[in-house]
Amino acid sequence: MPEMLYGDKKIHYEIYGEGEPLILLNGIMMSCLSWQLFMPQLSKDKKVILFDFLDQGKSSALSDNEYTHELQVEVLKALIDHLNIQKANILGISYGGEIALQFAIKYQKYINKLLVFNTTSYTTPWLKDIGRGWIGAARTFDPEVFYHVSIPYIYSPWFYTENYQWMETRKKVLGSVFTRDFLEAMIRLIISSEGYDIRQRLCEIEADTLVVGSDYDYVTPWFEQEYIHNHIRGSKFVVIKNCGHASMYEKPNEFISLINGFLSLKKSLSIV
Amino acid sequence: MPEMLYGDKKIHYEIYGEGEPLILLNGIMMSCLSWQLFMPQLSKDKKVILFDFLDQGKSSALSDNEYTHELQVEVLKALIDHLNIQKANILGISYGGEIALQFAIKYQKYINKLLVFNTTSYTTPWLKDIGRGWIGAARTFDPEVFYHVSIPYIYSPWFYTENYQWMETRKKVLGSVFTRDFLEAMIRLIISSEGYDIRQRLCEIEADTLVVGSDYDYVTPWFEQEYIHNHIRGSKFVVIKNCGHASMYEKPNEFISLINGFLSLKKSLSIV
Amino acid sequence: MPEMLYGDKKIHYEIYGEGEPLILLNGIMMSCLSWQLFMPQLSKDKKVILFDFLDQGKSSALSDNEYTHELQVEVLKALIDHLNIQKANILGISYGGEIALQFAIKYQKYINKLLVFNTTSYTTPWLKDIGRGWIGAARTFDPEVFYHVSIPYIYSPWFYTENYQWMETRKKVLGSVFTRDFLEAMIRLIISSEGYDIRQRLCEIEADTLVVGSDYDYVTPWFEQEYIHNHIRGSKFVVIKNCGHASMYEKPNEFISLINGFLSLKKSLSIV
Amino acid sequence: MPEMLYGDKKIHYEIYGEGEPLILLNGIMMSCLSWQLFMPQLSKDKKVILFDFLDQGKSSALSDNEYTHELQVEVLKALIDHLNIQKANILGISYGGEIALQFAIKYQKYINKLLVFNTTSYTTPWLKDIGRGWIGAARTFDPEVFYHVSIPYIYSPWFYTENYQWMETRKKVLGSVFTRDFLEAMIRLIISSEGYDIRQRLCEIEADTLVVGSDYDYVTPWFEQEYIHNHIRGSKFVVIKNCGHASMYEKPNEFISLINGFLSLKKSLSIV
Repeated sequence: MPEMLYGDKKIHYEIYGEGEPLILLNGIMMSCLSWQLFMPQLSKDKKVILFDFLDQGKSSALSDNEYTHELQVEVLKALIDHLNIQKANILGISYGGEIALQFAIKYQKYINKLLVFNTTSYTTPWLKDIGRGWIGAARTFDPEVFYHVSIPYIYSPWFYTENYQWMETRKKVLGSVFTRDFLEAMIRLIISSEGYDIRQRLCEIEADTLVVGSDYDYVTPWFEQEYIHNHIRGSKFVVIKNCGHASMYEKPNEFISLINGFLSLKKSLSIV
Repeated sequence: MPEMLYGDKKIHYEIYGEGEPLILLNGIMMSCLSWQLFMPQLSKDKKVILFDFLDQGKSSALSDNEYTHELQVEVLKALIDHLNIQKANILGISYGGEIALQFAIKYQKYINKLLVFNTTSYTTPWLKDIGRGWIGAARTFDPEVFYHVSIPYIYSPWFYTENYQWMETRKKVLGSVFTRDFLEAMIRLIISSEGYDIRQRLCEIEADTLVVGSDYDYVTPWFEQEYIHNHIRGSKFVVIKNCGHASMYEKPNEFISLINGFLSLKKSLSIV
Repeated sequence: MPEMLYGDKKIHYEIYGEGEPLILLNGIMMSCLSWQLFMPQLSKDKKVILFDFLDQGKSSALSDNEYTHELQVEVLKALIDHLNIQKANILGISYGGEIALQFAIKYQKYINKLLVFNTTSYTTPWLKDIGRGWIGAARTFDPEVFYHVSIPYIYSPWFYTENYQWMETRKKVLGSVFTRDFLEAMIRLIISSEGYDIRQRLCEIEADTLVVGSDYDYVTPWFEQEYIHNHIRGSKFVVIKNCGHASMYEKPNEFISLINGFLSLKKSLSIV
Repeated sequence: MPEMLYGDKKIHYEIYGEGEPLILLNGIMMSCLSWQLFMPQLSKDKKVILFDFLDQGKSSALSDNEYTHELQVEVLKALIDHLNIQKANILGISYGGEIALQFAIKYQKYINKLLVFNTTSYTTPWLKDIGRGWIGAARTFDPEVFYHVSIPYIYSPWFYTENYQWMETRKKVLGSVFTRDFLEAMIRLIISSEGYDIRQRLCEIEADTLVVGSDYDYVTPWFEQEYIHNHIRGSKFVVIKNCGHASMYEKPNEFISLINGFLSLKKSLSIV
């Protein structure tokens, strides 16, 4: 299984398909595994690169210290160098979208197109305090407490309610995922986001950008994506209707359509 | 301080002003104290009756057993009898709105007008699991954990962010409110809501009803109020813009205006 | 029937009830008659003053020349002087709201509270061209053409559809209202709005203000009211759900509740 | 220039690119010309077929009689036979979407995927009366009157306002497009939609379907698309934010992305 060293830390990555590179950046609770369902459709005509951030999935844990997003941005840069990529399309979800935006500011020339889903440009006090709630729940080291505090708000109320059988199954699966190690890593990942604020720097991003939100996103509400859209010149913007924060799971077809469709655009159109 | 006995339990209540009676039913975390700001404007020309449900404020705790909403409905009925009220206007917020709706179904003839703010007619699996997250947080008996898990979602993201100084002060105040006794009572109150579902019975309500929601209510989303409105014949419906679940605190003037205005209506108007 | 002279022009007005004065300013197609349904509930405890602007209802027509809103602002001022009013609550709908805002800027001290429903602070090019469409339709002097071009967009699609019998009756009634004189006056009233733009001056308004919009207002969309709300310090803001431009007709109870409720507020509340 | 005979009427069509066939159905005011901007991006890897309905563009006018949508559905079927197509992807906008839905019900087996943008399943009394306003304006045979009555409502208020220079240019261009012949054809096209109502038959559609709306569509409001989505099993649904009825012009990149992306999906995904 491919792996890169970042200092003495292992970074796990996976590559699917051939063609123009598309790098996918995980949300905070995700790992390479989370993309399985999507790989056949996403990697048909491109080279899709998945990887786990530090403290995620099969990459190394950082048990001994605090860090910020900055570190994960550098991990991404190291991976791009390691794979000898000159220019990639980069797509990030939530936490991954935040890393993507920061990478786009710092390493502009490596980006072809940029896609951010359910992302914010700023950890507001509101979001920070929600994160502290998650931390408090994680510190009980009771997987069910962490599940109930975090998961319901990641889905829209009706998706969760209409698919409650599936959610109950998921609750059981996550019961064994939410180990002490996982929860300790989660705490560090949450803390790494606390000082995040790039509102003033969005205007520096020149990549052709697609910003996608969901109207019932209760973690990074749609107006956060509208803010990003309003501050990245020429960016495109779609809000998925009747959908929560986990848009890739609630609306997988709309999710894939937007990615494949936006990547198919050869140049921006405008009638005016 | 006035007090009624319900069996061997004390029910604390307070009366302000003179005129047609208006009974206010607390949300789950509230008590009579929560209404202080509003009393001068609400009680100008009516008799406003506040009371604490069992397990709230200065009413008795029910340390030894579980119960359902049914019990609180009976407490309200007992209070109305105790005060020798023939007909009252009844207003409930969230938990209090749920009690108000059930009272309206069971004791229709005691109600003049009915007002429900930020209320649902059904504890969905989604809402039940959010409640379980609150319970998990409460069981840490750490006030800060309970605060972070519950409070941010009660406000809209921007109110919380724009008034963060005030929220920080509130965090300190609530630090001493969220005692072990309070949190144990909170757990029982949450559990009392778990089986709640009156969707099929809303059509029985004949009172002239005002239903109010907030567009950024992340606990009882506005479409829950739209559901109530669609199923209570002739009910009126307003959604407060840019506002979270705690509409009375975020938009106190719109809140009072809607109450006083709706109560001033002598009969329903229609042009068609 | 009471009447005031403004120069050589007659201004028709009507007074209902006793108490604090509340002056109601008509929308462009309205006249004193339009308020009939509401008078019993509105004038219970206040003195309500209705009047027709120049080129409306029973006031004089201005057949010979063009004019701007400025003229109607002065008519309002003259009426206030004529009635010897020191301070009034002023409520305007659409065209009337525009006059109310301009009056509030110019004659601040005469205003107690200000209420504007379905109003804009600027005739955008979009709105101007819609107005030109109305003018084009008016110039056919065919009442049915004017009806079909203007009326459907004044209601929300579902109100119009659900109450189509009533709309059909109204179509017949308006067939005899939309005379050549009426349509010529309408053209002048539309033209009087074309240069309207007070966006930069909203910040001068100090009156306690309520701004109300409707989410399906297709003439002055709700974001125009949000703009007004964002620029009048301390103003209150409500958007009526599932409602079109003619909110007073579609949601008469919510309409009256908001007016009576807001006027009942003795002072602005805030928890922060 | 390719042309098919339908009885004694000419049907103008155009073909671009090679690959799986995608047939585009015009909105009521459109013609093959309207798609020019999009052809390079749409026809890269597919065979795109444009055509003008009867009474549109370069196809024959039907000066002598009234007809319904049924006729246009048969024109589409004839074209598919003429081109010897076994199965096509079909995309319709507004009027074209209505024809597409009816074709999908009647000739299911010829459809691979179905895409409808800014479409309704029913000409409501509201929409019918708006159509009558357009007819009244068309009968003045004054291009400017028809422009002002129809065009502003086809765009969102801010697009129209922000791009007013472009709109003014367009007004001049359309001044020479809106000839007497064009307006007479427009009247017949509007009348052909008056009795349209397939609400009860949407459930018969089995094609994999994408439904797209715009949140500021003032002609076929987004809830009409939600209705279609709710009644076509397994359909996908996106609402483009801050966008009016003419979504292809206001948001061309989102428009193309959704088409190309949805067509790239090999099969529907679901996590539940």
